[in-house]
Amino acid sequence: MKALQKLQEKQKENKFICVGLDTDLEKIPSHLKQTKNPVLEFNKSIIESTHKFAAAYKINFAFYEERGSKGFEILKDTVEIIPKNTLIIGDAKRGDIGNTSKYYAKSVFEYFGFDSVTVNPYMGLDSIKPFLEYDDKLIFILALTSNPGANDFEKLQLNDGSFLFQNVIKKVEYWNEKNNCGIVFGATNPTELQENIDSFGDLPVLLPGIGIQGGDLEEVMKIFIQHKKLNLLVNSSRGIIYNDNSLNFAEAAKEEIIRLNKSVLGFLSK
Amino acid sequence: MKALQKLQEKQKENKFICVGLDTDLEKIPSHLKQTKNPVLEFNKSIIESTHKFAAAYKINFAFYEERGSKGFEILKDTVEIIPKNTLIIGDAKRGDIGNTSKYYAKSVFEYFGFDSVTVNPYMGLDSIKPFLEYDDKLIFILALTSNPGANDFEKLQLNDGSFLFQNVIKKVEYWNEKNNCGIVFGATNPTELQENIDSFGDLPVLLPGIGIQGGDLEEVMKIFIQHKKLNLLVNSSRGIIYNDNSLNFAEAAKEEIIRLNKSVLGFLSK
Repeated sequence: MKALQKLQEKQKENKFICVGLDTDLEKIPSHLKQTKNPVLEFNKSIIESTHKFAAAYKINFAFYEERGSKGFEILKDTVEIIPKNTLIIGDAKRGDIGNTSKYYAKSVFEYFGFDSVTVNPYMGLDSIKPFLEYDDKLIFILALTSNPGANDFEKLQLNDGSFLFQNVIKKVEYWNEKNNCGIVFGATNPTELQENIDSFGDLPVLLPGIGIQGGDLEEVMKIFIQHKKLNLLVNSSRGIIYNDNSLNFAEAAKEEIIRLNKSVLGFLSK
Repeated sequence: MKALQKLQEKQKENKFICVGLDTDLEKIPSHLKQTKNPVLEFNKSIIESTHKFAAAYKINFAFYEERGSKGFEILKDTVEIIPKNTLIIGDAKRGDIGNTSKYYAKSVFEYFGFDSVTVNPYMGLDSIKPFLEYDDKLIFILALTSNPGANDFEKLQLNDGSFLFQNVIKKVEYWNEKNNCGIVFGATNPTELQENIDSFGDLPVLLPGIGIQGGDLEEVMKIFIQHKKLNLLVNSSRGIIYNDNSLNFAEAAKEEIIRLNKSVLGFLSK
């Protein structure tokens, strides 16, 4: 099944939450630390308890690369235990000159088997093209991110009056020939979301930044609903996976994803 | 020894060439393919034959990530065999929100043991700051890259008349409190180099794009010399390591790095 289709199937089932598996060995419950592979055990439990409710999983490479080759093994093993009808996003934020990016694309899509990836647009089209050539995958290009640093460059105003992130979105639409592009838009930017949502067209939107980072779910959902756009994935990482640090962590993660998804549906039904 | 000091020691020895170990299993000499670990054997031979002449080594993560955890093992083993008085750059082009970037910095500096890294500035200061906190390391921030895609965003003009990459350079100077920043500036952009070199201050410049990518060594060296700036590293990857595909490959790599460094010195003495 194509990546975009996986996402759409989940949307039809009224599932909008993406679980971010940003698993840090130091933050997982202590009883798991005695097991042979604590991070994988943790991920396995979280996936088992949440997969019926999740629209997607997003795995951030940084948390695994910290432990080098062992971390990469856990990353690959984690991808393998996620049900294949669920979109799996490699949150890698890669990008390099064309000749090099093609190896990153092979890594993410062929070695690890992700359905989807996040890429950084700074280096332009040839840095993204090797990813775009996989027409069954979904490539989320960073537009406006959820962090304070989004002010440094992404929100710079260009000489035509537009902002850099707007130019990225415009180019992504142009590059979306195979219908396999999406954008990352931080939930911490409701004003920019309101002002720009009409320019997103049909691009799927990956929305990080809810919760710990300060994004307000109600505020951003109202904007999506008001503009009749529901092609979105609301990401929650730490809020779901570290909701509880006891023996009960997996059940608590399930409760949190159910709560979040219900909130989304609640706004939809209003 | 601090990373910047390693670079300066080599500059005092009149060494300016950075060897890019972009090793692709498919491109290495066939006689090595029967060995147990062809990529590591190849890197070992290249390092043995070139280290007396190299100012630095740059290892691009993409070529290793293509092979997942095995590739990461080779990457780590390669870092370990490079003489410790030579700067080793992890060409990773990483960047994420602050909480996540700190794991990338740990990976590159603590797990792999690189002296230096390349980072992507798109997400702004908090995405780079975890790297900057390592004051003994050297962080090369992408300013203007060597690829065609540099035209898409890096060369966009801002509302104050400057270009995005100029704004990046300006901010890097401001962020360089610990004297551990450098910039990446593609050798394929001689016009922009000429116009902007005075704005680089004392920042070390990593210069990719010579040779196969089209950058002209003489043209860029003239600009550096004319502006009395010699805090630079001229990178050559494919041009050195794939100079010859026979049994003689390591000797041929040595000849090429000697030739390139002599060219640089030749321009200097004029």
